[in-house]
Amino acid sequence: MELLFAYFESKSRLILSDAEKELISAKFRSKHVRKRQYLLQEGDVCKYFSFIDHGAARTYSVDEKGNEHILHFGIEGWWMGDHESFTHDIPSRLNIDTFEDTHFLTITKDSLQELIEKIPAVAITIKTIYNQRAISAEKRIHAAISLTPEERFQELRATYPDFLQRFPLGQIASYLGISIKTLGRIRSGGK
Amino acid sequence: MELLFAYFESKSRLILSDAEKELISAKFRSKHVRKRQYLLQEGDVCKYFSFIDHGAARTYSVDEKGNEHILHFGIEGWWMGDHESFTHDIPSRLNIDTFEDTHFLTITKDSLQELIEKIPAVAITIKTIYNQRAISAEKRIHAAISLTPEERFQELRATYPDFLQRFPLGQIASYLGISIKTLGRIRSGGK
Repeated sequence: MELLFAYFESKSRLILSDAEKELISAKFRSKHVRKRQYLLQEGDVCKYFSFIDHGAARTYSVDEKGNEHILHFGIEGWWMGDHESFTHDIPSRLNIDTFEDTHFLTITKDSLQELIEKIPAVAITIKTIYNQRAISAEKRIHAAISLTPEERFQELRATYPDFLQRFPLGQIASYLGISIKTLGRIRSGGK
Repeated sequence: MELLFAYFESKSRLILSDAEKELISAKFRSKHVRKRQYLLQEGDVCKYFSFIDHGAARTYSVDEKGNEHILHFGIEGWWMGDHESFTHDIPSRLNIDTFEDTHFLTITKDSLQELIEKIPAVAITIKTIYNQRAISAEKRIHAAISLTPEERFQELRATYPDFLQRFPLGQIASYLGISIKTLGRIRSGGK
């Protein structure tokens, strides 16, 4: 829980009291997912949002031909979940699985709402991350529709340098929407 | 202002008092932008978020070759603005201009914050639209990286049927990231 407490304090710039920490601990559940196992499978409703305490995961869809398309990566300090499914209780079109043994801290919609109402640091944090999600989603849309493969790779390297250490190249290529061959060419040419 | 009041009431499911309406009226400014004129130009800081009271607009970027890439369309009841620029006071990479004479209701960050603190209907609405933005951005990322041009067009037609009436075909093609020739083929084949 220490990473989650530090996360709320750093995002909100408020200090959590012991009582607030206790309430947060009571509302989040630990969930251990072994390497290459699912946190969420297509067709299921996303019942909780999940904070990565330790590990690495991805959100992806699978098209009719069986090709995977990666929407998001996540590492320590990131949230995983399907917003639409979580908000509207509808089956998800997405899958979430792990690259390594991963420890998630999960929370349901009702419990999150309770924490937002009772703990200012949580309320401020959630507001901040919704805004940051909107910003990073805008950037990702911009990159997908208007940047060249080279530019998309440079932007990824500048914005999330950790990703290049934590995820296999084939996965990075899928995230960027390019072939692994093109990615290899960009990396060797771009250094 | 009537559309904006109705918007806050419908999104929040609360009724605005006369005093609240008065405060909202005092904080929003009217801005008329003639057809094909800018609301925001690349390099400027996005100082306010803008609600479309009447008209039609688009958000787009221009790449080094001078090609336009459309990120968003907006019509009555939609908001236009660059989240990242607005939140962090940094120059925008985006342009916003209009397809017809457009009446915006604009608000600065400080005024929006004041309304959020004083008017529950505004606070609930802003929270709701942040979440909806996150959901629609996820869908747009999903469409951009994993759907075929045909599927992207079908999803647009199902989700925003108005867009096909309000925006030129060449603009729709740019939004979908396909050529106008491909869009023509899809439309004639898909009916």
